[in-house]
Amino acid sequence: MLNPVEINELVKQITDDVVLTLEKLYRPLGWCDRHDLNTEHLDLMCQLGASRIGTRLGTMNLGQNLAALIDHTLLKADATPEQVEKLCQEAAEYNFASVCINPCYVKFAKRLLERSKVKVCTVIGFPLGATITAVKAYEAQLAQYDGADELDMVIAVGALKSKGYEYVENDILAVVKQADPKHIVKVILETALLTDEEKIRGCELAKKAGAHFVKTSTGFGPSGATAADIALMRRVVGPDMGVKASGGIRDRESAELMVKAGASRIGASASVKIVTGQKGEGY
Amino acid sequence: MLNPVEINELVKQITDDVVLTLEKLYRPLGWCDRHDLNTEHLDLMCQLGASRIGTRLGTMNLGQNLAALIDHTLLKADATPEQVEKLCQEAAEYNFASVCINPCYVKFAKRLLERSKVKVCTVIGFPLGATITAVKAYEAQLAQYDGADELDMVIAVGALKSKGYEYVENDILAVVKQADPKHIVKVILETALLTDEEKIRGCELAKKAGAHFVKTSTGFGPSGATAADIALMRRVVGPDMGVKASGGIRDRESAELMVKAGASRIGASASVKIVTGQKGEGY
Repeated sequence: MLNPVEINELVKQITDDVVLTLEKLYRPLGWCDRHDLNTEHLDLMCQLGASRIGTRLGTMNLGQNLAALIDHTLLKADATPEQVEKLCQEAAEYNFASVCINPCYVKFAKRLLERSKVKVCTVIGFPLGATITAVKAYEAQLAQYDGADELDMVIAVGALKSKGYEYVENDILAVVKQADPKHIVKVILETALLTDEEKIRGCELAKKAGAHFVKTSTGFGPSGATAADIALMRRVVGPDMGVKASGGIRDRESAELMVKAGASRIGASASVKIVTGQKGEGY
Repeated sequence: MLNPVEINELVKQITDDVVLTLEKLYRPLGWCDRHDLNTEHLDLMCQLGASRIGTRLGTMNLGQNLAALIDHTLLKADATPEQVEKLCQEAAEYNFASVCINPCYVKFAKRLLERSKVKVCTVIGFPLGATITAVKAYEAQLAQYDGADELDMVIAVGALKSKGYEYVENDILAVVKQADPKHIVKVILETALLTDEEKIRGCELAKKAGAHFVKTSTGFGPSGATAADIALMRRVVGPDMGVKASGGIRDRESAELMVKAGASRIGASASVKIVTGQKGEGY
């Protein structure tokens, strides 16, 4: 027979082995023991390109760089693979920052874009932000596993409105902690549902939780981005965090207005029209 | 020393023990090896009450039983705990079938309703149906863990429209398999986005995957339930499956029309108005 020490050692070895196997098999919620955000993380984010994070208003050549600020977006429930394919082709052709698509299309888009510099952005807890934190974190984990580079998560709007600030912060933090250090987390506030005080608080909580961007709208709320909201959000988060304007931006003029107000990223479905001036409604 | 057979046995025992412990710890995606749907499952569902599943048009006393068919619903992104509390109180007072709320409020509603017969219904992959299957299954699992009795999942609309029927069926099946045998799964088609052929196919796939209800709308789509769609869905699924009409049902007349067309459940936010004739808009 084995002695107690040998048995303990055997048990430990087997346990480690089983845990490892199960982690691969079940993709468990391992985010709690993963990296914490630190300054290196943020620095790395910034190195991804001056036009992508921390861009201040008025410091860029809009004519040349507008496309590089656009997340080319298709989030409709009835979007088909054919439409997603066209979206990806356009993004590669016009050098948009990313395609922004629903989680079920991430793997498909990643494959289509693997030879381009276009990032794959997807949405988490979208568009209501009203699922539980663990599900947002899991969705973020699997989206990255499928190939997502950027995660646009929706804030817990009801909790924010009822002053559940700790809940809101932890909800964001769970997704941020889940994010690969090379990836970007944007926090959608759904500004049309918030008072100015709530918008400010939402920005503060997103910044505190270590997110990389705040973003105005889902495109499914009562209305979209306004220049006033962008200016407010930029004031609150400062120069080193991203601000994404989204919802209702359908022409170059609106896009430029948002950038002038402080946006460092634009979410739009009419992106081709925005950069070329061509007619058409986008998606 | 142990001989190889004894070591193998020891390894097996420890492995089983660790796996069990981890399953509890990580709540993994264990649905694949759980119960399969069978006729007992459906029988049990039906025993939950004739007014809830399998109700045929015209066979009930609408005046008395309308409340028992209503899922009292509040799914807005900015719903607050105070509003959910009021919803639960009303549901208990009027004996609605359930409250239908977002996942982040399931635990709260369950506590409020623990002394009543009102069920807690929540939504999965809502409202776009465009997250990946594993996330829908996980959301269903945790919602039940939090206390949900009924799961209204959104079908993979884009996949249905592009004829990805196997994907659609497996997507539903993953949630059905995740469901406790005592619980109910409803499949939201978002009919306003579908052709009649797609509605029929959606119903067939939901039935094939073992779901208990088909449901018209999320309330976030272009429009809601129509009597024609309800009649179509009832024809396809037959008498033994539930049909839930939802979206835009704001008065008693509309609710009764839906029941006459074949609905066995109504989703509404104006439920108090529907059953009392009182004025008010609901949520």
